[in-house]
Amino acid sequence: MFDYNGSFQFAIAALKRERRYRVFANLERKVGQFPHALWNSPSGKRDVVVWCSNDYLGMGQHPEVIEAMCSAARTMGAGAGGTRNISGTNRALVELEAELADLHGKQAALVFTSGYVSNHTGIATIARLLPDCLILSDALNHNSMIEGVRAADCAKQIWRHNDTQHLEELLSRAAPGRPKLIVFESVYSMDGDVAPLEAICDLAERYNAMTYLDEVHAVGMYGPRGAGIAERDGVMERIDVIEGTLAKAFGALGGYIAGTSDVVDAVRSHAPGFIFTTALPPAVAAAATASIAHLKASGAERAGQRDAVAATKAALRQAGLPVLATETHIVPVMVGDPDLCKQASDLLLDRHGIYIQPINYPTVPRGTERLRITPTPAHDARLIGRLADALIAVWQELDLPLGRDHRPVQQRAQTVAAGG
Amino acid sequence: MFDYNGSFQFAIAALKRERRYRVFANLERKVGQFPHALWNSPSGKRDVVVWCSNDYLGMGQHPEVIEAMCSAARTMGAGAGGTRNISGTNRALVELEAELADLHGKQAALVFTSGYVSNHTGIATIARLLPDCLILSDALNHNSMIEGVRAADCAKQIWRHNDTQHLEELLSRAAPGRPKLIVFESVYSMDGDVAPLEAICDLAERYNAMTYLDEVHAVGMYGPRGAGIAERDGVMERIDVIEGTLAKAFGALGGYIAGTSDVVDAVRSHAPGFIFTTALPPAVAAAATASIAHLKASGAERAGQRDAVAATKAALRQAGLPVLATETHIVPVMVGDPDLCKQASDLLLDRHGIYIQPINYPTVPRGTERLRITPTPAHDARLIGRLADALIAVWQELDLPLGRDHRPVQQRAQTVAAGG
Ligand SMILES: Cc1ncc(COP(=O)(O)O)c(C=O)c1O
Ligand SMILES: Cc1ncc(COP(=O)(O)O)c(C=O)c1O
Repeated sequence: MFDYNGSFQFAIAALKRERRYRVFANLERKVGQFPHALWNSPSGKRDVVVWCSNDYLGMGQHPEVIEAMCSAARTMGAGAGGTRNISGTNRALVELEAELADLHGKQAALVFTSGYVSNHTGIATIARLLPDCLILSDALNHNSMIEGVRAADCAKQIWRHNDTQHLEELLSRAAPGRPKLIVFESVYSMDGDVAPLEAICDLAERYNAMTYLDEVHAVGMYGPRGAGIAERDGVMERIDVIEGTLAKAFGALGGYIAGTSDVVDAVRSHAPGFIFTTALPPAVAAAATASIAHLKASGAERAGQRDAVAATKAALRQAGLPVLATETHIVPVMVGDPDLCKQASDLLLDRHGIYIQPINYPTVPRGTERLRITPTPAHDARLIGRLADALIAVWQELDLPLGRDHRPVQQRAQTVAAGG
Repeated sequence: MFDYNGSFQFAIAALKRERRYRVFANLERKVGQFPHALWNSPSGKRDVVVWCSNDYLGMGQHPEVIEAMCSAARTMGAGAGGTRNISGTNRALVELEAELADLHGKQAALVFTSGYVSNHTGIATIARLLPDCLILSDALNHNSMIEGVRAADCAKQIWRHNDTQHLEELLSRAAPGRPKLIVFESVYSMDGDVAPLEAICDLAERYNAMTYLDEVHAVGMYGPRGAGIAERDGVMERIDVIEGTLAKAFGALGGYIAGTSDVVDAVRSHAPGFIFTTALPPAVAAAATASIAHLKASGAERAGQRDAVAATKAALRQAGLPVLATETHIVPVMVGDPDLCKQASDLLLDRHGIYIQPINYPTVPRGTERLRITPTPAHDARLIGRLADALIAVWQELDLPLGRDHRPVQQRAQTVAAGG
């Protein structure tokens, strides 16, 4: 007799042995008090400061965003009530798609229930519609893109992370008339590094390849209107498909692609992960639209984030902490061991009321375990000072090295799937 | 030079040629006026009655549900702000999972961003954790389950729809010690038929197979507490994993699985579609919890739906319309031609202010095109009378047959993927 539960227990035991078993902290965010939250700890509720939120600009707590959500819920209800085709298309969603197309300067946009789903079903569908397509995928792409490439069921080649020379090598080797889809991110969320978009666009044009860019960790935060790194770098109109999330800097839920009317209509008509699922609630769509519209017009949140990030990096570096050098809002502090990383996180929470989740394998390669810190406009000088003090205390307690000169980790394993 | 946009245009043109190109109606539901909605038609806003909503009980408009959503948004914000592991686990989600485990009488439950994702990543992950697993999948399973089975990347066999004899044949042929996962639905959403759950449980026990049941079109609506067909049939504790949605009868968004702590913990720890995506917003989770809790205690909505469904079936049958005989809340009226089906739907909307989306291939097999009607407690005798009159007028206008004796369509193609 096969023992089913035994198999599941075995899988969990293996994670525990490897110190990879994850315990989720049960948080309760408080509107108006961001980045403070209540932690429902085993011994009761405690106030903590969240330093690892992907609500990068605090927009999930913005009064306009909350009011848009509540107002839509009160007038249109809590859910969409159907798939997009079967009574689930609502005014709020149609408006959101128009807002997104405008944000990225594209003809059209299409909303999915998450950024994960938009990559998964979007990449697979685009590649399947191109005869004998060859996908060229950056080695450090997010799991959702890896799964999309896999589901495409076509030929693929992996180019070394952000290495345009390698990309060109692969492009030049492929038959000139063959359709080629280059799949990559702008900001890589674990190392905080940025892809050379202009050089990739040059190559795509030279070799007549199509480009698919994930701006999940950039939309809202970069570019004059918050359209992402492609906007900042002035190459937005050279990218064929831009994918993004509504769940990070925009503070809501959902994902999208933007591109020509044709590619968007083709994905709308063929992508199973879009067709066979209930549409996003009008309330969520309205919240996202309010957030995008606000960040299009206002640069204050972006400026506030830039300042907080710069101050945090400076404070931690001055304390001698092993901060990865990044040019973005992501501040990785390296530990390099899963157990110590978990212990550091636990100590920060227990002793200092600071919540930073340990990032271990498989989210990052073994040996590069880290605390990933994401300062927002709401993290002020006082909080930054307390963070630096707490990290120093924890580093001393765990006998971790302080004061060394730390350089970016460049090479990561190809199987790594970032972000969770 | 490969012409990318040409490929996408070509794919769309093919759909148009086959009369399969879908145009989404832009609706605006009005709280308090369900099932009425505003249709943003090309010529302006018009009042319509929605007869194809999957908000089966109108819970998306329930004051308790809306209030739960707004109250959570006002106190906790619009979004979760992170993946479950990285600061995205919130009190509202933890409470929702407890409510779901209780609903299904299971040790634990796990929430995903949609029912689609729960099937896709849930089935794939469970099968991958079982060495050399054999999946036995009902021929008419939903696209999300088909994609989950595909992603599992293990051996699979398809059993003829609801045919337990065929299922037994396949089970008996497999090695006794080999892990086997039976994957099926309770209510099939396009024909409205119901799986023989007890017989399937008997077989699963006899052959030591694990059972995975999709109750997406049953939760909220069947069983004394709305836990689904398995509850109604008294076999809930014999099913290993129950999967459901929060987006149909519960009126919100999201999906889930419920089962032993071990299987839930293993999926939580291994499923990419769960790990690498932002968690559901607290506001959405709170709305779902309110809806589930309400429907656990109240049978009024279920009774109202039963009455409306019975009255609708009787009225349409008496009018001589080709209604599929079903034992559920799904009332398919057969057309059998994609063009006529689309025309019937257009006439209902234009002339009669009645919104029922045409259901064409690939959602149903060619030749079984239909209007799929879903009466809710809010569809009263007057609306039912107007529906019958409108359908008769449309049937006469299009010269469709009236008054024949119509029997259920039994056989559907195996590639069919229902629901969108
Ligand atoms: C690069 C990247 N793409 C896509 C996603 C998925 O987006 P979402 O959270 O909206 O599913 C993530 C993380 O969540 C990500 O890091
Ligand atoms: C049988 C079945 N399972 C799963 C789903 C997906 O659920 P959700 O809409 O929550 O993604 C659907 C339809 O949407 C369905 O019909």
